[in-house]
Amino acid sequence: MEKILIIGAGKSATYLIDYLLETANKKNRTIIVADLSLTLAEEKIKQNPRGLAKCIDLNDVVGRKKLIQESDLVISMLPAHLHPMIAEDCLEFSKHFFTASYESDALRKMQSEIEKKGLFFLNECGLDPGIDHMSAMKIIDEVHTKGYTILSFRSYTGGLMAPESDDNPWKYKFTWNPRNVVLAGQGTAKYLDNNEYKYIPYHKLFERFEKIAIENYGIFEGYANRDSLAYREVYNLQKTPTLLRGTLRKEGFCQAWNVFVQLGMTDDSFTINFESSKATKRTFLNSFLPFHETKTVEEKLTAYLPWIDEPILEKLTYLGLFSNEHLPLTQGSPAAILQAILEPKWLLQESDKDLIVMQHIFEIQTPKGIQTLTSSLVDQGINQTYTAMAKTVGLPLAIAVDLFMDGVIQSRGLLRPTSREIYHPILQALEKHGIIFREEHLD
Amino acid sequence: MEKILIIGAGKSATYLIDYLLETANKKNRTIIVADLSLTLAEEKIKQNPRGLAKCIDLNDVVGRKKLIQESDLVISMLPAHLHPMIAEDCLEFSKHFFTASYESDALRKMQSEIEKKGLFFLNECGLDPGIDHMSAMKIIDEVHTKGYTILSFRSYTGGLMAPESDDNPWKYKFTWNPRNVVLAGQGTAKYLDNNEYKYIPYHKLFERFEKIAIENYGIFEGYANRDSLAYREVYNLQKTPTLLRGTLRKEGFCQAWNVFVQLGMTDDSFTINFESSKATKRTFLNSFLPFHETKTVEEKLTAYLPWIDEPILEKLTYLGLFSNEHLPLTQGSPAAILQAILEPKWLLQESDKDLIVMQHIFEIQTPKGIQTLTSSLVDQGINQTYTAMAKTVGLPLAIAVDLFMDGVIQSRGLLRPTSREIYHPILQALEKHGIIFREEHLD
Repeated sequence: MEKILIIGAGKSATYLIDYLLETANKKNRTIIVADLSLTLAEEKIKQNPRGLAKCIDLNDVVGRKKLIQESDLVISMLPAHLHPMIAEDCLEFSKHFFTASYESDALRKMQSEIEKKGLFFLNECGLDPGIDHMSAMKIIDEVHTKGYTILSFRSYTGGLMAPESDDNPWKYKFTWNPRNVVLAGQGTAKYLDNNEYKYIPYHKLFERFEKIAIENYGIFEGYANRDSLAYREVYNLQKTPTLLRGTLRKEGFCQAWNVFVQLGMTDDSFTINFESSKATKRTFLNSFLPFHETKTVEEKLTAYLPWIDEPILEKLTYLGLFSNEHLPLTQGSPAAILQAILEPKWLLQESDKDLIVMQHIFEIQTPKGIQTLTSSLVDQGINQTYTAMAKTVGLPLAIAVDLFMDGVIQSRGLLRPTSREIYHPILQALEKHGIIFREEHLD
Repeated sequence: MEKILIIGAGKSATYLIDYLLETANKKNRTIIVADLSLTLAEEKIKQNPRGLAKCIDLNDVVGRKKLIQESDLVISMLPAHLHPMIAEDCLEFSKHFFTASYESDALRKMQSEIEKKGLFFLNECGLDPGIDHMSAMKIIDEVHTKGYTILSFRSYTGGLMAPESDDNPWKYKFTWNPRNVVLAGQGTAKYLDNNEYKYIPYHKLFERFEKIAIENYGIFEGYANRDSLAYREVYNLQKTPTLLRGTLRKEGFCQAWNVFVQLGMTDDSFTINFESSKATKRTFLNSFLPFHETKTVEEKLTAYLPWIDEPILEKLTYLGLFSNEHLPLTQGSPAAILQAILEPKWLLQESDKDLIVMQHIFEIQTPKGIQTLTSSLVDQGINQTYTAMAKTVGLPLAIAVDLFMDGVIQSRGLLRPTSREIYHPILQALEKHGIIFREEHLD
């Protein structure tokens, strides 16, 4: 009996576990779900006889290694910085290893050892990175097979809210790690535009967004992700003059978020200690504004950032930033305090439906002229537990594991899902679960 | 015979070496000047019989320690990150240690050992930090002795050019480490304004300057230094509602420098590799601007940063940023490339005279009302070698060493020159060398 070990039973593992339990019934497999919380692991298994819940304490090296040694394949759903530890264990005991996270330098250092042992370490097989790679590579390979040239490739993804659950002025709630949302974009964005290398510093990122239209869902704002240049190799687009990967937000978000960036409120590099009596949201906001003898905080803010308009003020007011409400965190970096202010305001409610939006925009040189091809995915969640985020992150990974166990995927080594052998059957299976790209051609 | 060891014979050590050689003649001391370049060390000694030139290779541990072991007192004129290594050696062989640099965490870790051995480790005894501390503490102690209250203390220093040598549109040349000039202000500035804590992110720093008037020299621009809050303790101003330390530039500099900050050209966090054929100053500038089908670089820049005016354009043109001149550096961080562009343009010429400007502005609550007290220092250099920068950095340190050797300064421990025993005789000696503060009172 084959044993698949899933480490981490959090929110994003729900669909993954369901899928693998279902296939396990037919395929004589055991699915071991290990989490620090045994209760959580048990809940996710739902008394399926093919499932086995285990408690795992990552610091208990002996117990951790024993679990890995006894399995055939390991899926890490842990926070990304913990993957290398699990990968090391997999290497030690010659186990295959799967994640939905970015391939890291730590993993790349293991590459020759992975190859030597004939193992399969698959990363970036979730949504973004994951479905974006697979759906893009499908088109890129098709275009290249026809002998056409790709002039431009821009790809945007967003984890947002369905219109019916958009009940706050930001049109945003947390469907993934809040800290990552607050720090998103820090560093320098790098991309290629008409053969010109372009660099955007963080403080300009949320001004330089592009408007992206998605049928039936309206206008979105797309801003550049950190390093698009690295994907020239990954996508086999070394000569493509325009290459950009980006993130989508609902209309109006970027300009409002830019207030926090401009003020310095997303700074994570130093600690503020508020005296308890002064620890109000208004004081927090005021500490980023130049002093003025008589002006109010509102007046100072709009004098400092004169592009602030009514819709932005409404968003700031919604968070209580002008109020004398006590700060939910009185000691921490500006980013940590901002996160503590946002969390209760952007909390996903039980019945909330989230929304995944992805769009690839290609410009292709064909014998008949330049063709624009857009390929778009929209997927809506069911509720707070069965989110589109959990589905689109978990299903591709579960399908990849299933296909690998079935022998359909025969690749070995350290890989992303960018080869046809991997992406083709995964995309086919995803379609059966309603994850379908809609293509539009414009000549 | 007492032996004083000076490590580092660079530009900023000229006045220091001259002063100590002169006093050595009267006081039976030997001044050992050690540098990686023996020729440079020999040049600085000018065949003075009291001087001894040595070659020092910091990586030659045995040779380095031998030099330190054989001396009575060590002055480090090395780049700041090398001080801890020398300080460790001094601790090992129980030698006193002097620098003009900021007291570092590494030094603070040695504090109890320094005290146990009865040694004197004096840091921050140059210009800024150094003369600023001493001249400020003199006034602060006087005010406190009178029983008055300091409501506000702002202190600005700048290393600039004398008006007669201001022959480029920036009115700036490099009189100290160019890399530090390019990276100046990165991080978050923190200060206190009317009992409000204020934080300025780097991308807002060069917009939030204050105009400072200096008699006979006109208007300057002062922007906040990194952490003014730490100086509440150092200056014994724990209850003062306004406390800010800052840097001075000539009028018009900050807004023009802000172009580089806004573009991301002072970013030191990633490397650009220009293809040799595309490595022009114009391409470098263009890589920070959004792509446009038809607009020129000039048009894109002024559309992107619409506050750019004629005087700013003149400054950018002076650097050749719109030209097709080849980049002086084709591989490096944006900051490194910008530095390479600036260095030949802001090079100090043989006859150039630099200018040190310092101003303290106090607001003092007296029984007669609030008094404003400004204390200003202006010092002009003689030429490229005898700069005001070298004089104001080197003399205070040299005087401190001389007074310590004479037994006038009897303090021991890890200190800054903020106690009267230290600053009073140093300021008196500085006056004899024309380093004189002019005070103005306004009721």
